[in-house]
Amino acid sequence: MGSDMNLITFEHNERLEKQINFIIEIDKVKNIVRKSLLFDGSRLENVAEHSWTISIMVILLQEYANFKVDIEKVLFMLLIHDIVEVDTGDTFLYSDERKNAHFNEERAAERIFGMLEPDQKKMFIDIWKEYEEGETNEAKFALVCDRLQPLIQNYVNKGCTWRKHDVTYEQVMKENIRIREGSEEIWNFVKYILQESVDKGYLAKNQPPKEKKE
Amino acid sequence: MGSDMNLITFEHNERLEKQINFIIEIDKVKNIVRKSLLFDGSRLENVAEHSWTISIMVILLQEYANFKVDIEKVLFMLLIHDIVEVDTGDTFLYSDERKNAHFNEERAAERIFGMLEPDQKKMFIDIWKEYEEGETNEAKFALVCDRLQPLIQNYVNKGCTWRKHDVTYEQVMKENIRIREGSEEIWNFVKYILQESVDKGYLAKNQPPKEKKE
Repeated sequence: MGSDMNLITFEHNERLEKQINFIIEIDKVKNIVRKSLLFDGSRLENVAEHSWTISIMVILLQEYANFKVDIEKVLFMLLIHDIVEVDTGDTFLYSDERKNAHFNEERAAERIFGMLEPDQKKMFIDIWKEYEEGETNEAKFALVCDRLQPLIQNYVNKGCTWRKHDVTYEQVMKENIRIREGSEEIWNFVKYILQESVDKGYLAKNQPPKEKKE
Repeated sequence: MGSDMNLITFEHNERLEKQINFIIEIDKVKNIVRKSLLFDGSRLENVAEHSWTISIMVILLQEYANFKVDIEKVLFMLLIHDIVEVDTGDTFLYSDERKNAHFNEERAAERIFGMLEPDQKKMFIDIWKEYEEGETNEAKFALVCDRLQPLIQNYVNKGCTWRKHDVTYEQVMKENIRIREGSEEIWNFVKYILQESVDKGYLAKNQPPKEKKE
């Protein structure tokens, strides 16, 4: 999906030329749509729009992080975390393809961030990996915002994406429990809207497993 | 254009309830289109997409700022700087309506940021005003990124927006000269692409003023 075409040439500063061509290249995420609808339900959201919203969430909701976080770093993480989708496309959290996505994403990161000079390539890849690995406080709080947005989108849109893709309450709980590592307070809110979603019929509970015969 | 409807209620934490409803309200900028095309020329860009791109530019191009800047603050500024357009719509840099926009924007800031608790309302309004006033180093460097993006969009798209709205080289120079206050290096690049744009016929020079008779 990538393209090696450089649209800008600027002989006076080749480093800047690379930076500008990188900006042009990553613009492609504006044509990559996610599975979730805008809050008004009018259309699917694209990756750039998603990244913008969760960046504002970082600023707004930082008081609920379980620990002190470096907000500049969390913003950097979330602004760039989905750029690899220029090459891989969007993968749905609850799908099987998600499990195999990592290799392709690493290759995409190499190509796209590799458009920059080595020092900036390293800076972008390091921050992208830090989020993927999810170990630092910044990565944990970034995940809170990244995961919270589609949950609210689904709640406001009456479970549209969940119902369309047969996602159950148990799956949503399992795939989002890591929110709790970043923010107990936001996790309480998530549990509330998920229970409301079940009560209102937006989100199906799994069939209870049949009792084993003795 | 605004709406007072709150989509989320969360009795356990009314502050968080307000924050979430604010996130939902500002989503409306995703339906507000600017005058500039995406880099691939396929459609007009919306305000959320614009804000995402210029935020990445801040991270990428910070080395060219004329002075040391607080990047977290610049990111906060640019992520929220166009939220008022939920109520006012987009105003074109080279239009007359731009001159009268400020009063409406202040009213919009009061309403939209007023959805938050007073401490966060103040934080958002203060940072929005700081950018509008343009006096601090952070505001000056934020402007570099905010103005640079549409210039590159126009260059890559062969002056599409300039030609459609009869914008001249002199107007573009006059309205963007402030880039120089934030970054000499980026200003050099801007002068280069504007001269290239004239040479290639993307951007018209004004008629030279007729010589006065003696």
